[in-house]
Parts: sequence; structure tokens; C-alpha cells
Amino acid sequence: MLLPTVLPADGLVQLGVRVALIVLIAVLLRVAVNRVIGHVSAGAGVPGLLSLLRRRRGVSDADRIQAFGSARRAQRARTVGSVVRNAATILIFGTAFTMVLGQFGVNLAPVLASAGVLGLAVGFGAQNLVKDFLSGIFMLLEDQYGVGDHVDLGDAVGTIERVGLRTTTVRDLTGMVWYVRNGTIERVGNGSQDHAVAVVDVPLAIDTDVTRAAATAEEAAVAAVRERGHAADVLDRPQVLGVEQLSASGMTLRLTARTRPGRQWAVQRAMTEHVVAALRADEVELAA
Amino acid sequence: MLLPTVLPADGLVQLGVRVALIVLIAVLLRVAVNRVIGHVSAGAGVPGLLSLLRRRRGVSDADRIQAFGSARRAQRARTVGSVVRNAATILIFGTAFTMVLGQFGVNLAPVLASAGVLGLAVGFGAQNLVKDFLSGIFMLLEDQYGVGDHVDLGDAVGTIERVGLRTTTVRDLTGMVWYVRNGTIERVGNGSQDHAVAVVDVPLAIDTDVTRAAATAEEAAVAAVRERGHAADVLDRPQVLGVEQLSASGMTLRLTARTRPGRQWAVQRAMTEHVVAALRADEVELAA
Amino acid sequence: MLLPTVLPADGLVQLGVRVALIVLIAVLLRVAVNRVIGHVSAGAGVPGLLSLLRRRRGVSDADRIQAFGSARRAQRARTVGSVVRNAATILIFGTAFTMVLGQFGVNLAPVLASAGVLGLAVGFGAQNLVKDFLSGIFMLLEDQYGVGDHVDLGDAVGTIERVGLRTTTVRDLTGMVWYVRNGTIERVGNGSQDHAVAVVDVPLAIDTDVTRAAATAEEAAVAAVRERGHAADVLDRPQVLGVEQLSASGMTLRLTARTRPGRQWAVQRAMTEHVVAALRADEVELAA
Amino acid sequence: MLLPTVLPADGLVQLGVRVALIVLIAVLLRVAVNRVIGHVSAGAGVPGLLSLLRRRRGVSDADRIQAFGSARRAQRARTVGSVVRNAATILIFGTAFTMVLGQFGVNLAPVLASAGVLGLAVGFGAQNLVKDFLSGIFMLLEDQYGVGDHVDLGDAVGTIERVGLRTTTVRDLTGMVWYVRNGTIERVGNGSQDHAVAVVDVPLAIDTDVTRAAATAEEAAVAAVRERGHAADVLDRPQVLGVEQLSASGMTLRLTARTRPGRQWAVQRAMTEHVVAALRADEVELAA
Amino acid sequence: MLLPTVLPADGLVQLGVRVALIVLIAVLLRVAVNRVIGHVSAGAGVPGLLSLLRRRRGVSDADRIQAFGSARRAQRARTVGSVVRNAATILIFGTAFTMVLGQFGVNLAPVLASAGVLGLAVGFGAQNLVKDFLSGIFMLLEDQYGVGDHVDLGDAVGTIERVGLRTTTVRDLTGMVWYVRNGTIERVGNGSQDHAVAVVDVPLAIDTDVTRAAATAEEAAVAAVRERGHAADVLDRPQVLGVEQLSASGMTLRLTARTRPGRQWAVQRAMTEHVVAALRADEVELAA
Amino acid sequence: MLLPTVLPADGLVQLGVRVALIVLIAVLLRVAVNRVIGHVSAGAGVPGLLSLLRRRRGVSDADRIQAFGSARRAQRARTVGSVVRNAATILIFGTAFTMVLGQFGVNLAPVLASAGVLGLAVGFGAQNLVKDFLSGIFMLLEDQYGVGDHVDLGDAVGTIERVGLRTTTVRDLTGMVWYVRNGTIERVGNGSQDHAVAVVDVPLAIDTDVTRAAATAEEAAVAAVRERGHAADVLDRPQVLGVEQLSASGMTLRLTARTRPGRQWAVQRAMTEHVVAALRADEVELAA
Amino acid sequence: MLLPTVLPADGLVQLGVRVALIVLIAVLLRVAVNRVIGHVSAGAGVPGLLSLLRRRRGVSDADRIQAFGSARRAQRARTVGSVVRNAATILIFGTAFTMVLGQFGVNLAPVLASAGVLGLAVGFGAQNLVKDFLSGIFMLLEDQYGVGDHVDLGDAVGTIERVGLRTTTVRDLTGMVWYVRNGTIERVGNGSQDHAVAVVDVPLAIDTDVTRAAATAEEAAVAAVRERGHAADVLDRPQVLGVEQLSASGMTLRLTARTRPGRQWAVQRAMTEHVVAALRADEVELAA
Repeated sequence: MLLPTVLPADGLVQLGVRVALIVLIAVLLRVAVNRVIGHVSAGAGVPGLLSLLRRRRGVSDADRIQAFGSARRAQRARTVGSVVRNAATILIFGTAFTMVLGQFGVNLAPVLASAGVLGLAVGFGAQNLVKDFLSGIFMLLEDQYGVGDHVDLGDAVGTIERVGLRTTTVRDLTGMVWYVRNGTIERVGNGSQDHAVAVVDVPLAIDTDVTRAAATAEEAAVAAVRERGHAADVLDRPQVLGVEQLSASGMTLRLTARTRPGRQWAVQRAMTEHVVAALRADEVELAA
Repeated sequence: MLLPTVLPADGLVQLGVRVALIVLIAVLLRVAVNRVIGHVSAGAGVPGLLSLLRRRRGVSDADRIQAFGSARRAQRARTVGSVVRNAATILIFGTAFTMVLGQFGVNLAPVLASAGVLGLAVGFGAQNLVKDFLSGIFMLLEDQYGVGDHVDLGDAVGTIERVGLRTTTVRDLTGMVWYVRNGTIERVGNGSQDHAVAVVDVPLAIDTDVTRAAATAEEAAVAAVRERGHAADVLDRPQVLGVEQLSASGMTLRLTARTRPGRQWAVQRAMTEHVVAALRADEVELAA
Repeated sequence: MLLPTVLPADGLVQLGVRVALIVLIAVLLRVAVNRVIGHVSAGAGVPGLLSLLRRRRGVSDADRIQAFGSARRAQRARTVGSVVRNAATILIFGTAFTMVLGQFGVNLAPVLASAGVLGLAVGFGAQNLVKDFLSGIFMLLEDQYGVGDHVDLGDAVGTIERVGLRTTTVRDLTGMVWYVRNGTIERVGNGSQDHAVAVVDVPLAIDTDVTRAAATAEEAAVAAVRERGHAADVLDRPQVLGVEQLSASGMTLRLTARTRPGRQWAVQRAMTEHVVAALRADEVELAA
Repeated sequence: MLLPTVLPADGLVQLGVRVALIVLIAVLLRVAVNRVIGHVSAGAGVPGLLSLLRRRRGVSDADRIQAFGSARRAQRARTVGSVVRNAATILIFGTAFTMVLGQFGVNLAPVLASAGVLGLAVGFGAQNLVKDFLSGIFMLLEDQYGVGDHVDLGDAVGTIERVGLRTTTVRDLTGMVWYVRNGTIERVGNGSQDHAVAVVDVPLAIDTDVTRAAATAEEAAVAAVRERGHAADVLDRPQVLGVEQLSASGMTLRLTARTRPGRQWAVQRAMTEHVVAALRADEVELAA
Repeated sequence: MLLPTVLPADGLVQLGVRVALIVLIAVLLRVAVNRVIGHVSAGAGVPGLLSLLRRRRGVSDADRIQAFGSARRAQRARTVGSVVRNAATILIFGTAFTMVLGQFGVNLAPVLASAGVLGLAVGFGAQNLVKDFLSGIFMLLEDQYGVGDHVDLGDAVGTIERVGLRTTTVRDLTGMVWYVRNGTIERVGNGSQDHAVAVVDVPLAIDTDVTRAAATAEEAAVAAVRERGHAADVLDRPQVLGVEQLSASGMTLRLTARTRPGRQWAVQRAMTEHVVAALRADEVELAA
Repeated sequence: MLLPTVLPADGLVQLGVRVALIVLIAVLLRVAVNRVIGHVSAGAGVPGLLSLLRRRRGVSDADRIQAFGSARRAQRARTVGSVVRNAATILIFGTAFTMVLGQFGVNLAPVLASAGVLGLAVGFGAQNLVKDFLSGIFMLLEDQYGVGDHVDLGDAVGTIERVGLRTTTVRDLTGMVWYVRNGTIERVGNGSQDHAVAVVDVPLAIDTDVTRAAATAEEAAVAAVRERGHAADVLDRPQVLGVEQLSASGMTLRLTARTRPGRQWAVQRAMTEHVVAALRADEVELAA
Repeated sequence: MLLPTVLPADGLVQLGVRVALIVLIAVLLRVAVNRVIGHVSAGAGVPGLLSLLRRRRGVSDADRIQAFGSARRAQRARTVGSVVRNAATILIFGTAFTMVLGQFGVNLAPVLASAGVLGLAVGFGAQNLVKDFLSGIFMLLEDQYGVGDHVDLGDAVGTIERVGLRTTTVRDLTGMVWYVRNGTIERVGNGSQDHAVAVVDVPLAIDTDVTRAAATAEEAAVAAVRERGHAADVLDRPQVLGVEQLSASGMTLRLTARTRPGRQWAVQRAMTEHVVAALRADEVELAA
């Protein structure tokens, strides 16, 4: 099959026609595909595509899409469109090239197809690359995070510095920059979407009067929000949930407050300081 | 095989007939398949399908199906139907397209089939995608969870925000939004089905009079339900199970109460506070 | 190979004969297979099949089979029979369909067989599904557990709510419902078969008189069974095994009692409470 | 290749001859194979086979083989023989069936061989089944454990209840029955072979006179064996090995005694109790 | 296919022409490819390529690229170019060689392609090598780290000694040199990019006056920077974030300061020493 | 390909000749191979083979080879030789059988080669078996351990009872017999080769005079060797290495002594007891 | 394909010519390849090859290469050369043998290539072997360690006893010899390259005067080097880095000193002893 058959003298014209046909079809196909992709990715296209992946979102989807601003959405549309266009181009011209070579009796297909030992090694070795890129594309499509979001990628926790197709870059608390391969990310935690929650767990001695402690703590938490200038950061009034945990070493009283994304740590610190101070002033015994 | 044989001048009519036949069959097949799918997914279809997966459910299945409301069931039926229909369409027209090309002497099949190195890499790299979608479809079919359910997906614990075909989105206690790939979910814990249980483990010193402590605790738990307004949340009277654990550092007394789903944490907190207060008032020594 | 050869005008009769033959054989085969399956799964069939898997069971096999009641056995036989029948039907008609298409010069086989990139991705992605179903079928065949059994599946511990072919559903202590994929279950612990054992480990100070403590504990355990109404639950008289563990922080005295399945926790709690009280009354120093 | 060629009118006789030949050879082959298997598995066969796997056993191999009793050996031989016979039958008739079909122009081979997408999924999904059965067969052949043995399978520790080809069943201390897939067992610990060892580790304060403590402990251990009726269980005189461990929190003195299999726990408990009592009587300070 | 057909006497000329053609095309192709690669890797090429991978970098990308200095960029361009050139050469001449052999009736392709048992073993065994090299190439392309950077590769933490295509070499704190295979690196933490952060967590007793402690600590941190000569190392004024953690054993007060990369440890040590001394002087009780 | 072509009446003689040729060659090949293997495995062969694997051994290789005694070496040579011979026989006759069948128009090759679904399942399921045997053969060839050696296989620690081709059997401290599949052994620790080291780590209070403690300990260690009859077991004079570890809870002083293999534990225990007694007598404060 | 076609009477001469040609080419090829390999591995070859792998080494590469001594380099060159030569020989003659057989109508290729079930099992089972050898070859090429180096292979820590192609042998602290399969080594830590670092972490009470403690410690460390005869071992003057860690239980003061490889432990012990003694003499409170 690999042997080029003797070139038929009277087949040369036919050969030329066929080659021209292949090239022509490839070019036309590419133009058509690019146009479709451009059409789809601009305007209504990508949202339509996204709606397939998103179908069941809960509350306030419209609001949130709006919140992205059209800038971020447009940028994502462009990135996705360019990825698809490049893939289509490579596929179309690669196939055409192989077919033209085939017209000249040089069949690359078997060589490529059954590279055997080498093929196995390279094919399997490269699967991670493919995984990384596929994961990257889908994370982009589903808009799981953007530059500046606070995320937990399992391997790294911090602020997104760059969203790449193969790797995502995150800078953590200590300023370390983490390059995480997209294919190794099994779940993404994004702390910058819609709202966050400040959680304070106060350790209490086991013979504390919980009712009084809870009243004092709630009052202090509200004061913390007011006095430390976090009024704009907190979406609801802080509230005491109650005793969260009971063990031989004491109880844990939990307070929470919904905040704007990115503000949860500041609010949480303010609440912690005020609550501890208030409980101490009130002579409530903290676990020790 | 890849070489288009010289086009037979007298075969052009036959070729046209064959191409038309292929296209016709594909279109007819698609219409037929779509009709069957629509028929199956509407009305009795999906429940019938589901009953295959569900065959051995325990108690009160009828009740629960009812509880879903027809809205959620209909939505699920539509999603599943649309997934199946798209898959069938892609399969039918893809095959038809390949066969038509084959009529013109352009065989895509070998190229696709034995893409060799590239094929291995892409095929293996993409298997995770397939896993994710297949898992998503089955989780949808088995209705393992819906938006608003409190779930434990292993990688993330919280409230479902969105049930996607590739990823499920969960918002946890701290407001962090987790994107979990469906294929990585090995087991799902759903805390919002039918009922939940509030569990309180009270640590006791090893020389406590357990009988008296149990009586005091049970009374306090009942009072907690009554006084804190949880009467509607609790399905049974709270009860003391007894000493659950015995170790060098003391004993653990366990109380439980069946509650409506989603109310277990509030009931549990109320019971904890009342039981600890009552035991302290009764001078029962808690482990320290 | 994919190109339908020009339809031979004089071959139409032969073609019709062959197609009819294929369909006929397929239908006959299916009838025959179904009959055999029905025969095997009803009556002596499944037990015979099961005996292959069970060959080396220890004691009281006959008793236990009886204990299942014929209801559970019949249900299992039906489920298994229906699974096998569906598989056979799909296999037979699928093959016939492919062969009939082949008669018309439309060969699906190569397309299916060598779907290449897509095939790899889907084939590998779907292997988990197959694993789940195969595991489910074998767990059913071996009757590892049934609805209501208390099981430990590794990923989830609790009471079986539903035994599905793809997933098993378990409700745990806190009322959470766990969906566990059958293929991820590596070992099953079933606490509801034949009997269970209540185990109490009493922590003793290192300078305790073990002989006296053991006597006191055994007496108390027997009293616990008698006085707390567990006489019917306990199969043997509770006994003290002796010092199980010796470490720098003390000794551990172990008592056990064989109970009816499902009653081990109640018996264990009663024994714990009585033994601790008796040792305290006897002024035996427990580890602290 | 899948297209049955037109049946040659003059080839019918030859076809009949060939089909008969195939069937005949298959039947003869099966008879021959079964006879060989029966021959091998009865009498000298299996031991011969086993000797291949066992070649390098240490001491007292002959004794142990004898100890199995001929009952257990015969049962194993029968199980193995039946497994091999069934496999051979399936292989021979399956091949013959495929070849007969091939004579009629119906080639199942390509269909089976290249089931493509489905084949990949099923083939990979089923590999666990094969692993389980292969592991089961080899564990049987090597006689790693039998019903009643105390084993540690990693996933489960307890007494063997049933040795199956796919799963092994173990009942643990608490009466729970564990079904462990044979293919998931990486190493087997069998505590019921030839002899066991009771090990007592006594924690000593760091300023203990080790020589005196060792003498006291050894004497007490010997007394424990004598006075508690374990003379028949213990194969050697218990002995003190010496200080096993030295750390900031004290020393550990180790005593061991070789026992009959299954009696190690009773002996160990008796020794522990006597040694601790003797050391206390001798005013040797135990670590606290 | 492997059998060389009898050499056609009249085909020798044609054969020579075809061989010459193959060699000619191979040489021309190689020249063309090398030229393109040289063109791309020099000047605008690699940055263009990189921009594909980098598209979404956050702040100050231009600055940073500049900071690399042209030396490091040029070196990376050369390395990448040489890798690509070698790969292309091997591919082109390998294919040509196989095709020439094919002209003489010696088909290596099937041998290579279907090396069967051996091929599987070698192909799979070698996939790690491929993974390592592919990972190495991409890490180089994305410039994740360079010689001298302080990195955390998961398996090893320390300073980069060498960036190889298969392995990366890191020297850790104790002077140990770690060879890490690039394919095993799932995420890279680079502590030498743009800036780092010194973080000091001061443990406080639970009844400390946090406000006063924070003021003292901040003042001390600023003094540390000034007095210990770190003014040039610190980019912002050190600041107290507040109480980071609250537990039964006390609170944790966090201070941070952005520093130049590589200077974070020195700054952190200076700040720690000054803050502890100041708090002690101020009689603030540290957790003990 | 599977269809036996009609037997050519005039080809019968040729067929007979070919079959005879195949059988003859197979028999001759087997004789030749067996002779070569016998030649190689006896005498200089295996060492030569081993030297390939061993090339870079450090000191005293000759001595050690000698130490094995010729018995163990001969046994290993026989085992390896028999394995290779069986493999060669199976390969040669299996190929011949397939080829003879092929002469009669019965091609087993395609059936075997492309068993499809079944083949995948069995092939993958059986790979663990192959891994086990290959690992076993290489461990034998490299002589990593023999019966009676004290080894750490990761999964099991103890004394080798049997070295099998598929599993290795180890008896641990408690008399439990572990069957470990050779393929699951990633690294082997052998404590019975050439020499061992007794290591004693003495915990010292942080304000101990290390110089005096070291002197006392070394003297005591030497005395322990002399007085407890370990002079023949210890290869060098015991020595104090110095302070190995420094932490908040004290220092650790390390002593070591090279011993004959298998005697390290007895020596270590003697040294521990003497050193602790001497330090106590010397009023050196041990960590507490 | 497997059927030898009837030997063409007039083709015998051609056959002979072709066989001779194949053998001739194989022999010539082997001679040529061996010569090239010999040329490359001797003299400039291997370094050139190595430079490809090493391209980016940091400081003093020339010095280090020199330090190896030519002996070690030459040995490595020989080992590598012999490996490559053997592989080439096997490849060339194996291919020639297969081709010659093909000339006689005996095609081994399909048998080898598509061994089906067996092939899968053996191929996959053997991939670990291939991994081990490939890893071994590359570790040799990159000269990651040599006999006598102190290494951390993850699975084993100690001194290299032998560098094999499949396994590496390490003797650890207790004299145990570890056989580690090269393919399981993910990262290698080599503590014998160029220099090492002695690190002493002194625990200080939280209210220590760090400045004074640091001064005392540094002085003591310098004294330790001088007085204990380590002047030649230490490359730089020991220095105090400062407070490394601050926690509720105290501070940690870190001292380091660069040493000659292999001397870090002795230096570290000397420094520890002197620093602790000096701090105690100076009445600095160490953490307790």
C-alpha cells in the first residue's frame, strides 16, 4: 500500500484535476468554517453555546452575566473562537495535504496511523497535553474564574494571575506564583462570585451560659461591622447560628455574615476581634 | 484505499442515485429517531426508563416521585431528551456525510479511524470529557440531586447551585463556589431527601451516673424542640440512644431526633444548648 | 470496503433470500435464548448458577438460603433474568441489523469498529459505566446485601435504601442519602448476616487487679442483658476475653457478646453502661 | 469480508464436509482435553502443578501438605479441574461455532474483534472481572487460605467464611461479613499456618532496673502458661527478648511465645495479665 | 505485504527516479523547515508563540519580559528552536528512509507499526520519557522558572540548579541536589517572580488586648525594616492584617510585608525578632 | 481470510511436505534452544548473565558470590533455566501448531489476535499475572533475597519462607504468614546481606552535659558487647556518633555498631540496656 | 498471509539472492552502527550527548566534570555504549531474521504483531520492565548518582551500593540493603554533589533575648568547627540566619554552615553540642 504505483502516463491530467479539486474543497471548507465560527462566537453565538453548559443555573443569572461586563465576555468569545478556528484550519489543511500526497503515491496515512512503538509512546505521553488544553478550553467556556479571582485549585490557593489554555497561574499569600496544569485540576473553588461569608467560630468553656454569650457576641459582631467601616461590605446583619460543636474540650459558637466577595477576610477579622473583646469584657469564659 | 479511483464516466448516474439514497435514509432515520425519543421522553417514557434504574427503591417511592412536582420531572425529561436527540443527529448525519464522501472516492474513515499518534493522544486526553458527560447524564437520570439540595460531593460540601452535564456547582458554608467535574464524583451524599437526623454527642466524665444523665438529657432535648419553635421540624420525639463510646478520656452519650430535611442543623444546635445547660444545672460532670 | 458495490441486477433475488435468512435466524435465536434464560432463571436455574459462585460456603448455608425467603430470591432471579434477556436481544438484533445493512452494501462495521479518536474517547470514557453495571450484576448475583441491611461500603456506612444496577443507595446515621457507584465499591461489609457481635473495650488503669475487674465486668454484662430486656437479642452469654491492649496509658479489657443482627448496638450500649457502673461501684480504677 | 459470497451451487458438498470436519475435531478435542485435565487434577497432577508454584518452600513442606488432610486437597483439585474444563469447553466450541458460521459466509469474527467503541468500553470495564477470577484461581492453586483461617486481607481482617472465585468472604471481630474482590487483594496475611507468636510489649519507666524486670516478667509469663491451662497451646517456653524501644517516654520490654495457630490471642492475654501483676507486685515502675 | 515482489527488470529506471525524488523532497523539506524554524525562533517568532500561551497575563507583563533581559530570552529561543529542528529532521529523514526501503521491497513500516508484544511493552514503557520531554518543553516555553529561582516542585523545594528537557535539578536547604522528572511535576511554585511577601504570625493569649498588640507589632515591624537595613528589600510599609485565627489555644495576629523576590525570608526573620521583642517589652502576653 | 480455501487436489503432497517441514523445524529448534539454555544456565552462563545486571557492584563482590555457596547459586540457575526452557517450548510448538492448522485452512491467528471485547478484558485482566511472574524472574535473577533472609517488602516485614515466581511468602514477628504478589513489590529491603547496624538513640534532657554522657554511653556500649557475649556478632567497636536531633523536648544521642547480619537486634537490645543503666548510675538526666 | 505460497520453482535463484542480500545488509549495517557507537561513546561523544541533556547547568560545570575523574566518566561511557550496541544488534538481526523467514513463506510478523490476548497481557505486563530499564539508562546518562553517594530515592535513603540498569541498590543507616526499581524513582536527592549544608535549629523559649542568643550561638558554632577539627570540612564560616519559626510553643533559631559533601552530619552534630552547651552556660532559656 505504501508503494507508489507506477505513475500512469495517461493519468497525469486526471491527477492534476483531482489535486486541484482537493485543494479547492479544502480552501472553500476553511472559509466556510471560519465564517460560521466568527458568526457563532460574535453576538448571540457563545452565550447560546454557554447556555447549553449552564442550563440550570439558580438565581440571578441575568444579573451576573451583566456583571461580567461585556469586556470580559467579548474577550472570552474571542479566545474560544480563535482556538476553534485554529483547530479547524489544522484539521482541514492537514487532511488535504495527506490526500494530495496520496495522489502522488506517497501515503503518509499508514505511517502516521501505525507509528507503532513510537506512536504508542508519543500518543500516550501526549495525552496529558491534550487533557490540559481540553480542560482549559472548558474552564474558559464555563467561565469558572477570571484574572483577579480568589480561587482554591487544590494544588494552589490564591489570586488568579493568568488564565492559560494549558496552565493557570495563581499567586498565593506568600507571593509565590503557582503554575497549575489545567488537566490536574479536579475541582475549582472560586471565592469571588456573587457573595462570600465571614465565619467566626468562638471557643467557649463547657460551662458557659450560651444564651448570654450568644447575645453578647451578636451585639459585638454588629458593632464590629459598624465601627470598623465594613457597612458597605456586609450584605446582611451578622447573626449567631448557635453552638456548632460540642466536645470534651468545650463548645464552639458560630457567627456568620454575608459579605461582598473579597471582603470576607477583613470582616471576619474585625468580627473576631470585637467578639473576643466583648466576651472578655462580659467575663464569659473562653475555652482554654 | 485512500486513492480516489478514476471516476467512471458511466458510473455518474449510479453515483448520484447512491448519494441521494444515503441522504434520504439519513433524513428519514433522523425523523424516526427524533419522534421515538420525543414519544419516550414525554409522558410515560422517562419514568419507564427511570424505573429500570430504580427498580428496587424502598419505602414511599410513589410519595417521593409526587413530591418532586411535575415541574422538576418535566425539566429533567426535556434535558435528557435533548441530549439523546443531539447525539442521534450527530451520529446519523456524521455517518451519512462520511458515506457520501466515500462515494466520491474520498475516504475519511481511515484518516479518522487511524489518526495514529494524534488519535491516541486526543482520544485518551478526551476520555475525561466523556466520563464527565456520561456521569452527568446518569446523575440527571437517577435524579441524585437538584438545585438547592445540601450535598457532600467529597471534593465539596454545600448547596447545589447548578446541575450541569460536565460540572456540578456547589456553594459551601464560606460562600465559596465549587465547580466539580461530574466524572470525579465517586459518591454523592444528599442531605435533603425525605428526612434528616439531628445527632448530639455529649461528652461525660467516666464516673457519671449515666441513667440520670440520660434522663436529664432526653427531657432537655424535648424541651429544646418545644421551646425553640422546632415542633414542626422534628418528626419524632428526640431520644437518647445511650453510651456510644467509652475511652480513657470519658464516655459519649448520644441523642438523636429525626427532622425535616434542611432543619437538622438548627434542631441539633437547639438540642445541644439545652442539653448542656440542663446537665450543668443538674450538676452532671461533663468530660473535661 | 465502504463503497457499496454497484447493485447487481441479477443478484436481487439472492439478496432478498439472504436478508430474509438473516432476519429469520435472528428471530429464532432470540426466541431460543429467551426460553433458555427463562428456564434457567426460574426454579433451579439461578441457585445452580449461584452455587458456582458460592461453592465453598461454610456453615448453615441451607438455613440461610431458606432465611432469605422465596420472595427475595424470586425477585433477584427476575432481575438477573431480565438483564440477561435484554443483553441477548440487543446483541442478536444488533448483529442482524449490521448484517442486513451489509447486504445492501452499507457496512457499518468499519465505522463502528474504527471510530478512531472519537472511539477511543468514548470507549474509555464509558468503561466506568460498564464497570458499574458489571459490579452491580455480580453483587446482585452473589446477594451481597439487600434493602434494609446495615452495610459499610467504604465510601458510605448505613442502611441500604436501594440496590441499583449502577448505583447503590445508602442512608447513614445523620439521614444523609449516599449514592455510591457500584464499580467504586472494592469491599462490602454487611452487618446484617446471621449474627453480629457487641464489643466493649473498658479502659483500666495499669495497676488495676485485672482478675477482680474481669469478674465484676462479666457479671455486670450478664446483668445488663437480663435487666435491659436483651435476652432475646443475645445468642451466647457475654464473656470477658481479657486484657486486649497494654500501653503506657493503661490496659484495655475486652468483653464480647454474640447478638442477633441489628441488635449489636443496643446490647453494646447496655453492657457498657452496666459495666462502667459496676466497676465504679466496685472502686476499680478506670484509666484517666 | 462481511458479505457472504454467493453460495456456490457445486460447493455445497464440500461445505458440508468441512462443517462436519470442524464439528468432529471440536468434539474430539474436547474429549481429549477433558481426559487430560481429569488425569492431571486427580492424583499426582495438581501437586505436580503446585510444585511448580511452590518450588522453594522452607521447612517441613511434606508435613504441612499432610496436615491439610486429603479432603481439602481433593476439594481444591476438583474446583481447579472444573474451572479449567469449563474454560476449555467454552474455547473449543466457541471457536468451532465461529468457524461453522464462517462456512456459511457469516463471519462473526470481525464483528466480535472490532466492536470498536462498545468493545473498548466493555473490554476495559470487564477487566476487573477477569482480574478477580484470575486472582481467585491462583489463590486457590497456591492454597493461600481456607475456610476458618484467620486472615488479614488489607481491606478486611477476620475469619474466612467462604473462598469464592470472584470474592472472598471474611467475618470480622464485630460479626460484620466482608465481601472482598479477589483482584483487589494485594497481599494476604494468614495467621493460621503452622504456628503463631504471642507478643507482649510491657511499657517500663526509663529508670527501671531492666535486668530485674526481665527476670520477673519471664517468670510470670511461664507461670501464666502453666496456670491458665495453655501448656498445650505454647510450643516453646516464653522468653524475654529485651528492651525493644527506647524513647523519651520510657522503655518497652518485649516477651514472645510461639503458640499453636489460633491460640496466640488467649496466650497473649494470659501473659499480659500475669506479667503486669507480677511487675506490680515486685514494685517495678511501669511507664505512666 | 512484507514479501518484496520480484524486482521488475524494466522498472529499475523508474525505481531510481522515485528514490531520487524521495531523497530530494526530503532534503528540500528539511531545508525549508529549518529556515522557517530559524525565522520563527529568532526575533518576533517565539514571543508570538509565547503570546498564544500567555494571552491573559495580568499586570506589568511588558516590564517583566524586559526584566528577563534579552539574554535569558535568547537562550530559551535557541533551546526551543534546536529541539524543534531536531524533531523535524528525525521525522523527515525517518519517513524518507522508510519510503526508500519500501521502493526496494523492504517494508519496515509493518514491522515497526505492529511490533506487537514488544511494541506494547516498549511503547507504554517509554510514555514516561515522552511525558517528561513534553513537560520540559512546555515549561521552557512558558518560562515557568530559570536557574537561580527559588521553587517548590512538590517533590523538592529549593533553588533551581539546572533546567533540563527531561529533569529539573534543584538544590535544597541542606545542600541536597534533587533530580525531578519534568513529567512528574504537577504544579510549580516560583517564589522569585516580581515580588514576594514576608508573613509573620504572632501567637497571642486569648485575653490579650488585640488593638494594643497590633499597634505595637506594626511599629516594631516598621522599625525592623528600618533598623536592619531592609529598606530596599521591602516594597510597601509592613502592615498588621489582624487576628487570623481563633482557637481554644489562643489567637494568631498576622503581619505582612511585600518584598523583593528572594528577600522575604530575611525580612520575615527581622520582623519576627523585632515584633516578639516589642510585645515582650510591652508586656503583651504571648500564647504559651 | 478465515475461510479455508477449497483443498487443492493436486496440492496434497505439497501440503504434506510443508507440514512435515514445519514440525521438523520446530523440533530441531526446540532441541537447539534447550541445549543452548542448558549450556548457559550451567557453569559460566548465569553468572555471565547476572554480571550484566550487576555490573557496578561495590566492594567484595567476589567474596559475597562465594558466600552464597554453590548450592544456592546452582538452585537459582536450575530454576531460571527451567523457566526459560518452558517458555521457549511453549513458544516454538505453539507457533508450529498454528502454522500447521493454517496449512489445513484453519487459521487460528485472527481468532486469537483479534478476540476483541473478550481479548481486551482477558488481556488487561491478565497483565497483573505477567507483571508478577516477570518481577519474580528478575528478583530471582538479581538474587534480591533467599529463604531465611529478613526482608522488608513494604506490604510485609519478616523472614522469607518461600521465593515463588508469582508470590513471595514472608512470616512476620507475630507468626503471620504473608503472601505478597511479586508485581506489587516496588522496593525490597534485605537486612541479611554482608552486615547490619545496631542503632541506639538515647533521649537526653536538654541541659545534659553531652560530652560526659557520650563517654559514659560509649563505655557502656562496649561493655554490653563484651559482657553479653556479643563479641563475635559485632564487627567494629561500638561508637557514639553524637547528638542526632535537637528539639524542644530534648536531645537524642546516637550510638551505632556494625554487626553480623541477623544479630543487630540482640546487640541493639544489649547496648540499650547497658547504656540506660550506665547513664542512670552516672546520674545523667534522661529526657522525661 | 500466513500461508506460504507454493514455492515457485523458477524463483529459487531470486530467493537465494534476496536472502543473501538481506543478510549482507544486516551485517554491514551492524558493523557500521557499532563503529559509530564506539566512536561516539569514546572521546568527545558522550559528553556531547550529555551536553544535550545538561545544557543549562549553573556554576562550575567544568570543575565538576573534572572532579568525576576520567575513570567514572569512562566507565559510564562504556556502559552506555554497550547498552546501545546490544540494542542495535538485536534490532538489526531480529529484523533480518524475520525478513529471511518471510522469504520462505513463513511470516512471523503477524504472529508477533497480533498476539492478541496474550500479547496484550505480556505487553502491558512487561511495560514496567521497559520503564525500569529506560529510567536506568537515563539516570546513568545524566549521572544522577554513583556508587558511594548518599541519596534519597524516596523509597530508600542511604548510600548507593550498586547502580544497575533495572534496579539501584542502597544500604541505609541500619545496614539494610534496599533494591529499588529504577522506574519507581520519581525524584532523586543526591547529598554528595559539590557541597552540603549543616543545619542546626535551636528551640528557644518565647521570651528569650534573641540578639544575645544569636551572638552566643554563632560564636559557639565557630568554636565547634575549630575545636572539633572540622576546619577542612567547612567551606564558609557558620552563620546564624535568625528566627526561623514562631509558634505558641516557642521560637526556633537557625544556624547553617556549608560543608564538604558527606561531612554535613559530623559538622552538624559538633555545632549542635557546642551551641546547646554555650547557650546553657549563658543561661539562655531553651524551649521546654
